[in-house]
Amino acid sequence: MTIDLNVIIDTLWVVIASVLVFSMQAGFALVESGFTRSKNAANIMMKNFCDYSIGALVFFVLGFSLMFNGSNFGWVGTPDWCISGDYSFLGLIIPFLAYVFFQTVFCSTSVTIVSGAVAERMKFSTYLIFSAIMTALIYPISGHWVWGGGWLSQLGFHDFAGSAVVHSLGGFAALAGVLLLGARRGKFNADGSANTIHGHGLTLAAMGGFVLWIGWFGFNAGSTLTASDPEAIAHVMVTTNLAPSAATVTALIVSWLKGKPSVDAAMNGALAGLVGITAGCDLVSPFGAIAIGVLSALVMMAGNYLLESKFKVDDAVGAIPVHGFCGVLGTILTGVFATTGGLLYGGGFHFLGVQVLGAVVIAIWGFVASYIAFVILKRTIGLRVTEEEEMKGLDLSEHGVSAYPGFKSDESDL
Amino acid sequence: MTIDLNVIIDTLWVVIASVLVFSMQAGFALVESGFTRSKNAANIMMKNFCDYSIGALVFFVLGFSLMFNGSNFGWVGTPDWCISGDYSFLGLIIPFLAYVFFQTVFCSTSVTIVSGAVAERMKFSTYLIFSAIMTALIYPISGHWVWGGGWLSQLGFHDFAGSAVVHSLGGFAALAGVLLLGARRGKFNADGSANTIHGHGLTLAAMGGFVLWIGWFGFNAGSTLTASDPEAIAHVMVTTNLAPSAATVTALIVSWLKGKPSVDAAMNGALAGLVGITAGCDLVSPFGAIAIGVLSALVMMAGNYLLESKFKVDDAVGAIPVHGFCGVLGTILTGVFATTGGLLYGGGFHFLGVQVLGAVVIAIWGFVASYIAFVILKRTIGLRVTEEEEMKGLDLSEHGVSAYPGFKSDESDL
Amino acid sequence: MTIDLNVIIDTLWVVIASVLVFSMQAGFALVESGFTRSKNAANIMMKNFCDYSIGALVFFVLGFSLMFNGSNFGWVGTPDWCISGDYSFLGLIIPFLAYVFFQTVFCSTSVTIVSGAVAERMKFSTYLIFSAIMTALIYPISGHWVWGGGWLSQLGFHDFAGSAVVHSLGGFAALAGVLLLGARRGKFNADGSANTIHGHGLTLAAMGGFVLWIGWFGFNAGSTLTASDPEAIAHVMVTTNLAPSAATVTALIVSWLKGKPSVDAAMNGALAGLVGITAGCDLVSPFGAIAIGVLSALVMMAGNYLLESKFKVDDAVGAIPVHGFCGVLGTILTGVFATTGGLLYGGGFHFLGVQVLGAVVIAIWGFVASYIAFVILKRTIGLRVTEEEEMKGLDLSEHGVSAYPGFKSDESDL
Repeated sequence: MTIDLNVIIDTLWVVIASVLVFSMQAGFALVESGFTRSKNAANIMMKNFCDYSIGALVFFVLGFSLMFNGSNFGWVGTPDWCISGDYSFLGLIIPFLAYVFFQTVFCSTSVTIVSGAVAERMKFSTYLIFSAIMTALIYPISGHWVWGGGWLSQLGFHDFAGSAVVHSLGGFAALAGVLLLGARRGKFNADGSANTIHGHGLTLAAMGGFVLWIGWFGFNAGSTLTASDPEAIAHVMVTTNLAPSAATVTALIVSWLKGKPSVDAAMNGALAGLVGITAGCDLVSPFGAIAIGVLSALVMMAGNYLLESKFKVDDAVGAIPVHGFCGVLGTILTGVFATTGGLLYGGGFHFLGVQVLGAVVIAIWGFVASYIAFVILKRTIGLRVTEEEEMKGLDLSEHGVSAYPGFKSDESDL
Repeated sequence: MTIDLNVIIDTLWVVIASVLVFSMQAGFALVESGFTRSKNAANIMMKNFCDYSIGALVFFVLGFSLMFNGSNFGWVGTPDWCISGDYSFLGLIIPFLAYVFFQTVFCSTSVTIVSGAVAERMKFSTYLIFSAIMTALIYPISGHWVWGGGWLSQLGFHDFAGSAVVHSLGGFAALAGVLLLGARRGKFNADGSANTIHGHGLTLAAMGGFVLWIGWFGFNAGSTLTASDPEAIAHVMVTTNLAPSAATVTALIVSWLKGKPSVDAAMNGALAGLVGITAGCDLVSPFGAIAIGVLSALVMMAGNYLLESKFKVDDAVGAIPVHGFCGVLGTILTGVFATTGGLLYGGGFHFLGVQVLGAVVIAIWGFVASYIAFVILKRTIGLRVTEEEEMKGLDLSEHGVSAYPGFKSDESDL
Repeated sequence: MTIDLNVIIDTLWVVIASVLVFSMQAGFALVESGFTRSKNAANIMMKNFCDYSIGALVFFVLGFSLMFNGSNFGWVGTPDWCISGDYSFLGLIIPFLAYVFFQTVFCSTSVTIVSGAVAERMKFSTYLIFSAIMTALIYPISGHWVWGGGWLSQLGFHDFAGSAVVHSLGGFAALAGVLLLGARRGKFNADGSANTIHGHGLTLAAMGGFVLWIGWFGFNAGSTLTASDPEAIAHVMVTTNLAPSAATVTALIVSWLKGKPSVDAAMNGALAGLVGITAGCDLVSPFGAIAIGVLSALVMMAGNYLLESKFKVDDAVGAIPVHGFCGVLGTILTGVFATTGGLLYGGGFHFLGVQVLGAVVIAIWGFVASYIAFVILKRTIGLRVTEEEEMKGLDLSEHGVSAYPGFKSDESDL
């Protein structure tokens, strides 16, 4: 036969994993929609559906090349419109387009994280333009540093499937957006105390949690980009299963100690554990995965508390602690728990230091670049719908529909 | 070892792709249910669930053999009850039953397309009998022409994954059903103007859109029926991703220009792009895929407008433009954009002519055969529920339940 | 190359199948939630989400070793905390952790079956503790008998993917729970007649039915634990498709004969067929699969009738007939329909006898062990929420939330 069986098998693995990662778009849409109000439910689905479509095009046209087409001093690749150049220098085993597809679904995951935090008040047009900017520039540039041969990769920075590259970037981009947008009407009282704005569909949100967990198996294990190391794939599956399990149980217990076992805590706990394990899922032991899960849940819950109660920041679905804070945490903890090179395994402080550096730099990049983009958008087309539109809900004001026209609303909750 | 690794790998690929195609049943169910009213929501789920079950049995008992068991003058295979004969002449690399499974999930996809268009007024019993007829006869016969070695395949007709064989057949079968059924009560006013009948759950519909897109990766890339050409699989993944992305953005922009960015436009845009790319996903370039996506979205929107405003045809979920019109379009555009043989690539008019011929013939076959079946059903058991049943909703009148008994209905929308 | 391609391919197959099995958690959550009332919808999602997380940890810490770490007189493996020992004696082709992952998702499936039956009145804390007990002890012990080299496997008992090991164990555990819990308030009238308590979201339930069917392809075909027999995988796919199809149609017809074609019947029919085919999916012919599907549907419906009307047992979602009765049935029918060794194929009564023995013993074990566990829980922390909590709904009383706060409830149904 003419084609090496390893190429065939690796390709199957990468495309199947890519489809699982794609399904995370649906998972995010369900979680974000379920945890916000019914009057904004269709808008959130639309944001997730359309940012993917825009992102897939923009990443094809420009983003991919900025991330992977060579390297200019370790900072950024060379623009190559519609990836028309020769990428044989990548030395890929799998077909180039399989790699493009895998990277495309990864890129879109990062953008979608922003969607939830800014929900219920950002203009649809503004969100879509931001998602194009993030896909074209913000994600590919820092992605280049780590996965495109850039300066962080040269330092030995390790982010296996993107705790930093995907999640903390998205989380800190969301923080920039939320700070410039301001809180939702009614979120904070005059005395600074916060009100809980209840999600309209907890079954949808929980379904979304399951879908994200399912997709994450492809996200993490697919990042091997090859099937040729079955031990590695099996290892990643187990760590990607144990960390969110431990995180869910941790968050459940903490919320129980404070009152009742909370749906938000369980769902965001699982996601925190998944984000936390993503950087080191290949390098930490099952015990390390459990430890990372526990710590991720605690950081997520502390982060939620700090953002809401101390800093009066309104993150509609808790995306910033989950993706931003736990993305940073997981990246750093890889330097602690990695069985080769981690602090607890005799690796010393150099690797840990690189992990801290990378985690911090990517978070700052995500925040600053997005802040600049959002400021420009704010001064041009504006970030926020009008107060009247916000009260009516974005489904009606932005899309002219109701997501659930057959049902009577309980106005007291809107 | 005794079994060739290629057989093993090909089998895995085909069965995994088949499971993805199966999931499209869920996707269709969600889209169709979400885009119609809550009083018919359970009925639509039931139609999709039960047509699959019936179809799987009927295709096993008869349909498969009519499609694949030899060829009688290029028109139809030889009936072979319960595929008990010898199919070694197919020369399959994969196990015969893997092929049967793959073809079964394909067949069921075609039937399910009809479900949405005729929603909210067709009798449940009539729908199920029609789905059996379509699975036993209508789909296998035209399927034979293209994929069973029949006359169209002999002419060089190319429909890689079924823009015509699956989608336009289903779409034109739906047109026949809708014409004989008539519009839903309240759809058109006395002066001929149309009312919008709002879908009851746009989060469900959007979830369905995601699920369909996910399943379509298996639908198109699995149609390789082998993993031995990884370049082809990677190529199909990328074209199957770019076409719906371009179509979604196109439909979004068009709907925005006419008012507000519409949920229907985005969802049906994505589906239009997916249907359009299906015939030529293996032969067109990424640019061709984007072009097909844009054109599919435009044809879908024009089709919706023509059907509703000009011809007063009531297609409850827009299935006819999406599957019927874009199925024909995608089949024809394969003759234009195919990088080997397409008009734009110096292929001349012969291949394009064959594509046009096949697209038109299959659409006509789908329409005429279904029309005859529906006429017979109309004159025997009847097509339509009574006016009272339609007003009460099919959930109550056909199944004796409410899909959402815990919620107060907003009668104004029903 | 250093790694055998068979190992690579087998690993891919097992981990992909595992992800499909994981998705069944989401399927169960949706079916159970959709078939119960909106005031308990979040509680049910939480139970399914959290029992998985707890189960994954407990099975890792203890359960796996009790099931697979050697054998003490054929009854149970040797405890090995956190699977830290040497498992090379298992002679696995795939990496050990891939096997752990696959067995973990299987174990969790069994626990989740209990969730639905006891819905709407069991305390959340009690359910979680029970799920830990079942994952740590009940499932691993009987699992050891069949899949861990224990006494039933030594007798030649055949349960390919777990009709008995997973489903009837879960179903009879559920029966124990339901008997000790008692019926939901309002389920039975003073004269003993039963009221129908309607499910709050039939679209959710139907979506769950689709998801379970999808996941089941991985559950059954993945139980090959190797891709090296493609004929077997293809065969299992087809039997796993035909049995639920036949069961759905059978249940549909029966319910139609009694009145209207029922959503419950179709969904639980499909699940009954899936449970029934699970034990012998590798050994029965396509005709055998259809026969098993038909019989499973009939037993499920008879079981529902007997439990509710004769024995006044309140199984909130019909899990006991589906998983318990059809699990036993499918295990026994494997002894009838197996083309090698089955009674109808000249296999004589010995194999059938072993199947009957195993089916009965596992059902009794599931019932008795769970009964003891539930009795202990009843005498300590209690099984049931208070009457006031039950009336308010478990979402509010156990988690302090409403699953659908934006919608007006129709109190008449609650």
